Amino acid sequence: MLFTQTLIPTLREVPADALIVSHRLMFRSGMLRKLANGLFTYLPLGLRSFRKVEAIVREEMDAIGALEIKPPVVVPGELWKESGRWETMGEAMLRARNRLGGDFVVSPTAEEAVTSLVRDTLASYRQLPLTVYQINTKYRDEIRPRYGVMRGREFTMKDAYSYHAGAKSLDATYEAMGAAYRRIFTRCGLSVIPVRADSGAMGGSDSEEFMVESAIGDNTLILCRECGYAANVEKAACREEAAVQGADTPALESIHTPSVKTIEQLCAFLNTGADHFIKTLIYRARNVALDLSTAPGTQALSPRQSPGDAQAVYPEAFFAVAIRGDLEVNEVKLAAVLKASEVALAADADVERLTAAPVGFAGPVGLRGLPLVADLTVMAIPEGITGALAADTHYQHVVYGRDFIPWLTADLRTVVSGDRCGVCGGALYEKKGNELGHIFKLGYKYTRSMGVSYLDENGAAQTPIMGSYGIGIDRTLASIIEEHHDEAGIIWPMAVAPYQVIIIPISYSGPAKAVADTLAADLEGKGIEVLLDDRNERPGVKFKDADLLGIPYRVVVGEKNLERDMPSVEVKRRDEKEARLVAVSQAEADLLGRVYGELSASA
Amino acid sequence: MLFTQTLIPTLREVPADALIVSHRLMFRSGMLRKLANGLFTYLPLGLRSFRKVEAIVREEMDAIGALEIKPPVVVPGELWKESGRWETMGEAMLRARNRLGGDFVVSPTAEEAVTSLVRDTLASYRQLPLTVYQINTKYRDEIRPRYGVMRGREFTMKDAYSYHAGAKSLDATYEAMGAAYRRIFTRCGLSVIPVRADSGAMGGSDSEEFMVESAIGDNTLILCRECGYAANVEKAACREEAAVQGADTPALESIHTPSVKTIEQLCAFLNTGADHFIKTLIYRARNVALDLSTAPGTQALSPRQSPGDAQAVYPEAFFAVAIRGDLEVNEVKLAAVLKASEVALAADADVERLTAAPVGFAGPVGLRGLPLVADLTVMAIPEGITGALAADTHYQHVVYGRDFIPWLTADLRTVVSGDRCGVCGGALYEKKGNELGHIFKLGYKYTRSMGVSYLDENGAAQTPIMGSYGIGIDRTLASIIEEHHDEAGIIWPMAVAPYQVIIIPISYSGPAKAVADTLAADLEGKGIEVLLDDRNERPGVKFKDADLLGIPYRVVVGEKNLERDMPSVEVKRRDEKEARLVAVSQAEADLLGRVYGELSASA
Repeated sequence: MLFTQTLIPTLREVPADALIVSHRLMFRSGMLRKLANGLFTYLPLGLRSFRKVEAIVREEMDAIGALEIKPPVVVPGELWKESGRWETMGEAMLRARNRLGGDFVVSPTAEEAVTSLVRDTLASYRQLPLTVYQINTKYRDEIRPRYGVMRGREFTMKDAYSYHAGAKSLDATYEAMGAAYRRIFTRCGLSVIPVRADSGAMGGSDSEEFMVESAIGDNTLILCRECGYAANVEKAACREEAAVQGADTPALESIHTPSVKTIEQLCAFLNTGADHFIKTLIYRARNVALDLSTAPGTQALSPRQSPGDAQAVYPEAFFAVAIRGDLEVNEVKLAAVLKASEVALAADADVERLTAAPVGFAGPVGLRGLPLVADLTVMAIPEGITGALAADTHYQHVVYGRDFIPWLTADLRTVVSGDRCGVCGGALYEKKGNELGHIFKLGYKYTRSMGVSYLDENGAAQTPIMGSYGIGIDRTLASIIEEHHDEAGIIWPMAVAPYQVIIIPISYSGPAKAVADTLAADLEGKGIEVLLDDRNERPGVKFKDADLLGIPYRVVVGEKNLERDMPSVEVKRRDEKEARLVAVSQAEADLLGRVYGELSASA
Repeated sequence: MLFTQTLIPTLREVPADALIVSHRLMFRSGMLRKLANGLFTYLPLGLRSFRKVEAIVREEMDAIGALEIKPPVVVPGELWKESGRWETMGEAMLRARNRLGGDFVVSPTAEEAVTSLVRDTLASYRQLPLTVYQINTKYRDEIRPRYGVMRGREFTMKDAYSYHAGAKSLDATYEAMGAAYRRIFTRCGLSVIPVRADSGAMGGSDSEEFMVESAIGDNTLILCRECGYAANVEKAACREEAAVQGADTPALESIHTPSVKTIEQLCAFLNTGADHFIKTLIYRARNVALDLSTAPGTQALSPRQSPGDAQAVYPEAFFAVAIRGDLEVNEVKLAAVLKASEVALAADADVERLTAAPVGFAGPVGLRGLPLVADLTVMAIPEGITGALAADTHYQHVVYGRDFIPWLTADLRTVVSGDRCGVCGGALYEKKGNELGHIFKLGYKYTRSMGVSYLDENGAAQTPIMGSYGIGIDRTLASIIEEHHDEAGIIWPMAVAPYQVIIIPISYSGPAKAVADTLAADLEGKGIEVLLDDRNERPGVKFKDADLLGIPYRVVVGEKNLERDMPSVEVKRRDEKEARLVAVSQAEADLLGRVYGELSASA
């Protein structure tokens, strides 16, 4: 391809809104242009690499027997009402109403559309397991789209969905999918951090995220350098503290604490550390699917069961949550423990009503009005300090089991740097990361709510169990640039390079033109993707653009080297400092060997 | 690919809403399923052929130097407001408003999005001509989506846009595009009827539609069997009638015509044919860009010129349109002549006000209140009969030029079967057709309204001229099936077949299984796409499904033929009646030769 015959509008200046290196380089190299906030047009150069990432994903999906389909991008709102997500997806889902008053959704994901298809198609257990996927346009209306295609509004996602006769079959597909994801990222030249939702044991996980390290990452990862443990902070666990027996502890004692409102003030007042304090917070939870019939203070609540629901839920319930004073409650863990759709700190008025005390004096001792949920750390405090459910009053020498018994205990802490690894005891540390892919055992959520069934070996109707598996194509592409660049531009891994060789004649005329044209034609005849810079520009401009574009091999054709005894060209790999002189007669073979060598190494 | 490892849910029954053969066969062969009205999911089999059509289109676009890009599907409403189409696109355009109150459009076409990109990218005449294209999702909210993907709501379109420094360059790209379209449809095995907007002279056309004949076509085509003239009825012209001199005609005479309201009644009353009558209709036109300063009855009108407009327009104006009584006015031609955005018959009250007569008595003689536009046929009526602008009164012996002079004369008639061809004089006939592609010289409409410019050789800012070129991928796919099928199912042309060979072991066990597996693996190793029917079904079911799926070559592997002296399989082309016995040892070579032979014949 001649440079002047394609559209590669390179830029020297950096656009003001390009905050990260991939956005800057994709823009400057002419891979894409912004159409509007969070909406981008891929230009020919960007689209070439985009399609290569897409092709790698497709190959690996096909290799594990996933079947490609193409559902529409615009789907009826009715499907989302069936699954219940019409209400819960929030405002990030772009909705449209057509002239006939029908509700439509620009798909942010496709559990509903695909499950509807499977419902219409699945008849017998013989069709299972069934894994289908699409590589298609998605839309999520980010309020503040930033970082180019790393967090755009419209994006392309590979999303796969699997259906199974049982959990064992789901486990097998889930593991095959995880292995395929690892191959995809390796082939793209990406170092990903696979983050399992559980403690890392094989097979037991019900979700795994594939993260890349990123200073602007949406996610905080908790990692162990010693054993490789990796978890999203939302789910990360650490070594439990040993529970202690408070047998020799002095009796509970009330202390007057005037003007003390915060834990910091209390620590100063008592001259002790926050880790001696049992912090007690009041949470409001919505749609609680936990059975509260034995929980204190919930007699007035009655659960509701909608026809499609597997379980009755309490629309609203309050909980007291106790945790060691130097730690934070992880609300994702709390919601999971309570089987709630949402948890949030209760309003002051609710706190005062439920604890019969001013805000700041809640505590576990004598608490009657609501269920107490205690983090595991509370059991490891030999003698604690707590609010005493009365103004300006605390208790000290508080002992778990003697002075209070929680209704429920669970791991609720937010793990932080320095906590001990739950697997090996090593020191955990934090990193910011971006999620490129996610594999997830969905269970029966969609197949039950949407009424999917098949006949088993005995002719009985059964509901299939389901998994879902996504990869963001645009974000994967941008992440490759984040990992492979230098100050001068992109350094493409061969497998995803837009072109494999760039040929730069110092001047596109005379013998240099002839050699450049012949080499380009010969290489293209052998399947190599060549960009020939035929522009009437100074060599410096062409070299700068070649570095910016990041094409793996650069061939410079200059008159001087052609006039040597052995007419030669200069060949340089993008990440090497020095070029090699290669005889014109050897150039084709040299480049063929290198390009195909690198391609097969990454296949 | 093993049949049981993919998802091909064939059906015996015909879905009730499948009215045309392509819809029935795509559904029955398991190529697609309906998600909702006008929204379809392609299943693996359908997607394979879909991708082949897409690939043919892509190859032919790349071959003429068009550059593939990927704009977003969802675009901001602002762009459509810039071009003015936010108002004019009507309710078929799906609009959404996001949480921040921003207007968005699910693209029905992309002139705006691409012109916005070119505006940001184009700097110099050296970048021109520039042709870009996408193959992407489109949405048009059909009120009554029917006929499967032939007229769906969401569809995939290849849309290309070209930008040029002048009309000559646009002509060249337009002709190259037309030639590419012809190659695309030929490679897809389609007989298309190219329909030019003008009389068929090369180079002068500003639009060409590529039609396929279809009983359920949206378009009526006017065709000449003798010279090949083809036009959409909206624009079709025919041989003009010779103008006559009415020198010897008796003087104009008023006749009393009580209770005569229609032309039929008048013909009966006067015992004459409708072709003696000069029918006069009153039209209301909107946004008329014609200069009306010399037109009668328009003194009170004043044209408006918006800042971006090239020309002043009259928001509303009325016209009397005269035509021979047996003919119909073609409103598309009329709007073009008046340079109006819309024309429609005037309301009765307007007719009575403007003609000062009851409805039914309009006529050209003495008409003062509005401009008269006459079809060319009016000049060929030696003595006509017309309304006399008074109740129950007509004129006879009306002569053009003597009794009335129109403000404007033009070709306004709707051509019908039996009219004479304007090129060769042959008899024209009508056919219904569906449009698969359209190439169109857009002129400066978008580049002017959206402010696109480049610097010419002299450094002066210029506006580029533009063309647009579309092909519906889904509709092309469905049309292939419409043209290639029989009662038993689809008969795929090799180039777009989902698989090229289907192997059917009578029983998938023993030696038949071994031969089938080996042949499939050998062919796949040579790049042939093979479906192996490994299902535990009766042979009759497998044969019926093979006919339904329409895969070009069927190989039946049966024990009996394997037990011959020369172990053999049966090979049959889908459109042949009889199978040939081919030695197992020859089968691979036989099929390779045939499949690759057919592929290269259509490439």
